[in-house]
Amino acid sequence: MRTDARRHHDPQVRGFASDNYAGAHPEVLAALALANGGHQVAYGEDDYTGHLQRVMHSHFGATAEAFPVFNGTGANVVALQALTDRWGAVICAESAHINVDEGGAPERMGGLKLLTVPTPDGKLTPELIDRQAYGWDDEHRAMPQVVSITQNTELGTVYTPDEIRAICDHAHERGMKVHLDGARIANAAASLDVPMRTFTNTVGVDVLSFGGTKNGAIFGEAVVVLNPDAVRAMKHLRKLSMQLASKMRFVSVQLEALLARDLWLRNARHANAMAQRLAEGVRAIDGVEILYPVQANAVFARLPHAVSERLQKRFRFYFWDEAAGDVRWMCAFDTGEDDVDAFLQALKEEMAR
Amino acid sequence: MRTDARRHHDPQVRGFASDNYAGAHPEVLAALALANGGHQVAYGEDDYTGHLQRVMHSHFGATAEAFPVFNGTGANVVALQALTDRWGAVICAESAHINVDEGGAPERMGGLKLLTVPTPDGKLTPELIDRQAYGWDDEHRAMPQVVSITQNTELGTVYTPDEIRAICDHAHERGMKVHLDGARIANAAASLDVPMRTFTNTVGVDVLSFGGTKNGAIFGEAVVVLNPDAVRAMKHLRKLSMQLASKMRFVSVQLEALLARDLWLRNARHANAMAQRLAEGVRAIDGVEILYPVQANAVFARLPHAVSERLQKRFRFYFWDEAAGDVRWMCAFDTGEDDVDAFLQALKEEMAR
Amino acid sequence: MRTDARRHHDPQVRGFASDNYAGAHPEVLAALALANGGHQVAYGEDDYTGHLQRVMHSHFGATAEAFPVFNGTGANVVALQALTDRWGAVICAESAHINVDEGGAPERMGGLKLLTVPTPDGKLTPELIDRQAYGWDDEHRAMPQVVSITQNTELGTVYTPDEIRAICDHAHERGMKVHLDGARIANAAASLDVPMRTFTNTVGVDVLSFGGTKNGAIFGEAVVVLNPDAVRAMKHLRKLSMQLASKMRFVSVQLEALLARDLWLRNARHANAMAQRLAEGVRAIDGVEILYPVQANAVFARLPHAVSERLQKRFRFYFWDEAAGDVRWMCAFDTGEDDVDAFLQALKEEMAR
Amino acid sequence: MRTDARRHHDPQVRGFASDNYAGAHPEVLAALALANGGHQVAYGEDDYTGHLQRVMHSHFGATAEAFPVFNGTGANVVALQALTDRWGAVICAESAHINVDEGGAPERMGGLKLLTVPTPDGKLTPELIDRQAYGWDDEHRAMPQVVSITQNTELGTVYTPDEIRAICDHAHERGMKVHLDGARIANAAASLDVPMRTFTNTVGVDVLSFGGTKNGAIFGEAVVVLNPDAVRAMKHLRKLSMQLASKMRFVSVQLEALLARDLWLRNARHANAMAQRLAEGVRAIDGVEILYPVQANAVFARLPHAVSERLQKRFRFYFWDEAAGDVRWMCAFDTGEDDVDAFLQALKEEMAR
Repeated sequence: MRTDARRHHDPQVRGFASDNYAGAHPEVLAALALANGGHQVAYGEDDYTGHLQRVMHSHFGATAEAFPVFNGTGANVVALQALTDRWGAVICAESAHINVDEGGAPERMGGLKLLTVPTPDGKLTPELIDRQAYGWDDEHRAMPQVVSITQNTELGTVYTPDEIRAICDHAHERGMKVHLDGARIANAAASLDVPMRTFTNTVGVDVLSFGGTKNGAIFGEAVVVLNPDAVRAMKHLRKLSMQLASKMRFVSVQLEALLARDLWLRNARHANAMAQRLAEGVRAIDGVEILYPVQANAVFARLPHAVSERLQKRFRFYFWDEAAGDVRWMCAFDTGEDDVDAFLQALKEEMAR
Repeated sequence: MRTDARRHHDPQVRGFASDNYAGAHPEVLAALALANGGHQVAYGEDDYTGHLQRVMHSHFGATAEAFPVFNGTGANVVALQALTDRWGAVICAESAHINVDEGGAPERMGGLKLLTVPTPDGKLTPELIDRQAYGWDDEHRAMPQVVSITQNTELGTVYTPDEIRAICDHAHERGMKVHLDGARIANAAASLDVPMRTFTNTVGVDVLSFGGTKNGAIFGEAVVVLNPDAVRAMKHLRKLSMQLASKMRFVSVQLEALLARDLWLRNARHANAMAQRLAEGVRAIDGVEILYPVQANAVFARLPHAVSERLQKRFRFYFWDEAAGDVRWMCAFDTGEDDVDAFLQALKEEMAR
Repeated sequence: MRTDARRHHDPQVRGFASDNYAGAHPEVLAALALANGGHQVAYGEDDYTGHLQRVMHSHFGATAEAFPVFNGTGANVVALQALTDRWGAVICAESAHINVDEGGAPERMGGLKLLTVPTPDGKLTPELIDRQAYGWDDEHRAMPQVVSITQNTELGTVYTPDEIRAICDHAHERGMKVHLDGARIANAAASLDVPMRTFTNTVGVDVLSFGGTKNGAIFGEAVVVLNPDAVRAMKHLRKLSMQLASKMRFVSVQLEALLARDLWLRNARHANAMAQRLAEGVRAIDGVEILYPVQANAVFARLPHAVSERLQKRFRFYFWDEAAGDVRWMCAFDTGEDDVDAFLQALKEEMAR
Repeated sequence: MRTDARRHHDPQVRGFASDNYAGAHPEVLAALALANGGHQVAYGEDDYTGHLQRVMHSHFGATAEAFPVFNGTGANVVALQALTDRWGAVICAESAHINVDEGGAPERMGGLKLLTVPTPDGKLTPELIDRQAYGWDDEHRAMPQVVSITQNTELGTVYTPDEIRAICDHAHERGMKVHLDGARIANAAASLDVPMRTFTNTVGVDVLSFGGTKNGAIFGEAVVVLNPDAVRAMKHLRKLSMQLASKMRFVSVQLEALLARDLWLRNARHANAMAQRLAEGVRAIDGVEILYPVQANAVFARLPHAVSERLQKRFRFYFWDEAAGDVRWMCAFDTGEDDVDAFLQALKEEMAR
C-alpha cells in the first residue's frame, strides 16, 4: 500500500529508556486493518467495543465493564473521578505515577487532592495507608475516599495477591474504594504467573486502569470497572474528561488483539525475561548495585554518574535520581537478547574505563 | 500477518450518520506500519513528530507549531486554555461543538465560561460577537478573551477568508484572540479551493484545532499554534489536559500521511462532492427541504418525521432537531457514488409511501 | 467605645444604585455586640449557629438545615455543587445572576455548565425549561440536573407560589432538582405577603440560597437545605469552596437578628414600598417608560440616555442596557421617602431640560 | 439598641483551643458602627477600602495593594492562583495550612498541585525547597512556580527576616515567586519586634495573605500584593473565587481599626505574652514536654493522653497528634493572665492524679 508518509527512523535501534519507546506489536497493527473499512457507530457503539466487553469478561469476570480511553493519565483521572465525590481525596504512594508523572492532571483536571505516603519500594501497606487514612468527618481535610496502588509499581516491584487483598480489605473497612493503576498489569501477571483477576477483582480492587500501550499497542488503555456499585455515569466522565475516542473500534480492536488469546502475556513474559537477563548480567559487574527486587520489566541500578553519562551516549536510558546516581533500565516486548547482551557489554566496558 | 483479533463487522456497509463512522484511509494505515519498529523517544521527541513540524510549515508557514493530541474535544480544550487566563471566557456560536457536544469539558476541565450567541447558520460575525464582547474591566463578568469559530461550521456552512479576517480584526482590536475549530478544516479548504492558510494564519487566526480523524485518520488531531505570541507552555497544558500521547510517532505519522502531499485534499474533495451529489438528488424530491447552504460534506434537511424513521431502518443517520423534523446527512471520504444513489432511491421510495 | 478607625463617608448620602450600597440595619450591629465576648467553638459549632437552626426551622420547617456562608456567589456555587454530579449542568434564565454576575465562578470553581434560556421577564417556565431539558443519557451533553430560579428575579419580578410549584413538579418529574437563588427572598415574601416557605419548601424547592446581606446584614447568607435527600456532605463542600467562616457566630447572629422576629420583613416591606412610591412617581413623568412589573424593590426604566447621564451626577444608579437606554433603580431597607421624592424631583427636572 | 437576637453564650468562658474561638476586639466592633449608615459603593469602590490602601502603604510601602477577602483559605487560594499559571505548582511545608487544613480548596478550587516537604519545625529552608524545586521544563511534572511559607508557622515557630530573605532569594533565582500565609503575621511581628515589612516586602515576599480574623476582627483578611509585577487581574480572581464582599466597607474598616495605629500589635503582643506565661508555667511541671520553640501565641506539648482527656473536660483544646499525645494550646488577644493561671493549676492537678 502506498502512503505519502516516509520512514524517518531506523527500526533496528532499541534502547532501555522506556517501554513507551517501543512501537506496536505487528499483530496489533494487523488488527487495525481487520477493523477498518465500512462504517461503524462512533463513540463506542461499534461491534469491536461490544466484543471487547466479552474479552474483558474472560479475564475479569462477567460484571467487569471496560471503558476504552486514550492514555494512562486519562484512564487514571477518569477512574479516580469516578470513585470520588467533589470533596474526595486519594491516598497513594509518593512515587505513584499519578503523583509524579501526570503533570498535575489529577489536581487540575480532577480537582483531586492526593494524600501521599513515602514507601521503601513503591508499595503501600495497610500500615502506610493509615498514615493518611483518617479525618473522614473533618471538613478541614479532603476526605480520603480512594486508595490507589500501581501494579506493577513504578519501581518495578510486584504486589502479591495477598498484599493487595490486605489493602482492599483495609480500605473497604474504612469506607474507601481501591483503584489499581495497571499501566503494566500484564507484566505483573506474568511475574506472578497468575491470571490478572487473581490480584484485581478476586481480591477486591474496584476499578482498574488497564494498560495496553506499554504492552504493545500503538495507544489505548481502558478503565475497567470491576465493582459496578462503586461508580456511576462512567461514559459521561470519560467524555467530559476528553477521553472518548470517536472511532473507538480502533482502540478496542487493539485491546482485543492483545487480550483475545495470549499476546498480552507473551509480550509481558518476554519483557520480564529480558529484565531478568539484564539483572543477572548486571549483578556480575562489580560496582553496579541493583536497587529494588527485579520483579517485572524494570531494573533500577546505582552506578558512578560518569559511567552512566558515557553509557547514555551508546544507549538511551534515564536517570531516576541523578544526585544519587540512580538509573532506570526498562525492557519492552521487543527488547532482544542481543540488545541486552550488547548493553551489558557496553556497561562492562564503561565501568572498566 | 496473523492477529488474535477477529473481524466483527461488514466492511461494505456505509451510512450517512457521521464522518466519524468511517474507518481510516488505507494510506494512513500504511503509514502506521512505516513508523513502527525500533525505539523512538516517547512523548513527542520522536522523528515523526519532528518531521510533522516541517509538513505543517508547508501548510501554515514557518512559525506554525503543531502539538498532536488525541481528539477534537481535547484539541479545543487545550487550545482554549492556552488562549485564556484563569478569568477568561470564550465567545462562540450557540451551535458550536464546544458548547453543545463536548459534555461540558470546556467548563469542567478548562474552567471556561462560554459566552454564546445564536446564529442563523452557525457563523459568527463582528456584529454577533459584539453581543457578548464587552465588560473587560468588570470583574462580575468572566472576561471575553477569545472568539472561537468553527470552519466549516457544525451546520455545514463555510466562512470565506474575508469573513474570518473581519472576525479576527474585530477580535484583535478588542484585545481578544481567535481560535478556529478545524475538525473539518480540510472540507472547508476543498470547498473554498484555497490553501488552508488562506483562511487561518493569513487572516489572523491565532490557534487552530486541526482535525485529522474525520479526514481519514484512525484518530489524531493537532493544536496548531499560528501566532506564537498568543500562547505559552503548550506542552505543559497538553500533558495536564491528558492529551499527551506516549507513542506520539503514531499520531504524527498519520497526520503526515494526510498532509505530506494531497491525501487530505483528495479525501475532503471527495466527501464534499458526495454531499453535492446528495443535495442535488434531494432537491429533485418534492417535500424534502434543504436547510443550509451545502458547502462542505453535510446536508441538513427537513422532511416528514415518519419518513425519516422508516429511512433510518435502511441507512444510519441522525435527527438534528427531532421536533422540527430536521436531519443531518454526512458524507465521508469513503462514501461512494453508489451509496449516495442508493440512499436517494430509498428516500424517494419512503417519501412515496 | 474608642476605635482607631475613622469615619470616611457621609452617612446621610443615599442613592438608587444597589441594595448592596446600603449599610447594615442598626439592630444587626447590636446583635454582633451581643454575640461578642468569651470563646465560642469556631467553624459552626457555636451556640449562635446552633440556635440559628431553630430560627430557620420556624421559617422553613423542621427538616431545613442552614449552612451560613459569606456571600451570594458563594451560596449559589456551594448549593449548585451540592445538587450536581461532576457531569451535571444547571438550567437557568439567561439573565440569572449565576450566569451574568458571578465572574464565571460557577464554571471556574464549580466546573458547572449553565444551560441558559432567554426569558421575557427573568422568569423560567416549564416550557422555557424544556428548551434545555433533554439529553440526560447523551454523554456529549452536560447532564441537566438542576433548575435554578431567582426569587425575586434579577429584573424585579416575582414568581407566584404556583409558578414555582409548576417548575418544581416539572423538574422533579424529569429527575432534576430545584435551586432557588434567594438573594432577595425577603422582598419576594413581602411582595407576595406570604411566609417564605409558601414558595420554597411547600412547593418543592430543594435548596435555597438565603440572602441576608441585601436585607440589612453587613454580610452573611446561608445555603438552606430544604430537601435533605437532595444533598450530601454539605459542610465539606462549604469548606472546600472557601465559604466556611471561622468565627461563624458573627454570621449566624446577624441572620438571627433578621429572622428571629420580623426585622427581615420590615426591611423588605419598606424597600418594596419605596420602589412602589418611586414607580408611581415615574409613571407620572412623560417620556420615562417602566420596563417590568414592579413587584419587589427594583424599578427598571427606559429614558433618554442624556437624561440618565445628567441624573447620575446627582444620584448613583446603573445603566442596565446602556445601548437601549435602560436603567435600574434599586431601593433598600434604608431608602427614605424623602430620598425617593428628591430623586423624582431631579428626574422631572432633567427630563424637562 | 434593641435587637431581636438573643445572647446564647457565657462571655466569661475562654479556653485554649484556638485564636478563632475568641470574639472580636471591642474597638473593631466600634469601627463597624462608624462605617455604617448611608450608601457606599459596593464591591470595593467605597471610601473605607480606599483608605485602607493608605493604611496598608504605611505598613508595606507605597506599592502595596490590598484586596480584602473573607477568610484565610480564600486569601491563600486567591493569592496562589494569582502567582501561578494553569500548569503551576506550589512548594510548601507538609504542615502548611494550605496542605492540611483547607479541605482541598487549593486543589479543587485552584487546580493547584502542592509539592510538599516534611520539616522539623514547620519552617522551609532553601535546602528543603530544593527537594521539590526542579523539573521546570518537564511537562510530566506540575511546574514549581511558587514557594509558600507561613509566618508564624502552624507550629508556633517564627522565621527570622534573614531566613525569609534566603528563601526569597532562592526562589527568585529559580524563577519562582514567594507567598507568605500571614494568618498570624501580627504575632510574628510582635515576636520579632520589627515592623511587618521587615520580613515581607523588604526581604522579597511577593504576595501576602494578611490575617485579620485571628488578630481580633469578626472576619476579614486581605491579599496584599507587595510585588505588583508578580500578579494580574487580582480583582477578577477575587470575584471568581467567591471572595468579593459586596459591602466591603465592613471588611476594610475592621482592618483599618486593627492597623491604623497599634491595635494589631497590642493584640498580638498580648497573645504572645500569654503563651510565654503558659510555657513558663508548663516547664515547671514534671512530665509535660514542650515540643517546639514558643515564639508566638501557640504552645505545643506532649503529656499523658489520659491527663489531656481529663483536662479537656475543664478547658477546650485540641490534640495535635493524638497517637503521640501531642496537644496544642493557643492564646488569643483576649486570653487573661487568670485564664492561664487557672489552666496551669488544672494541669498540675490532673498531672498529679
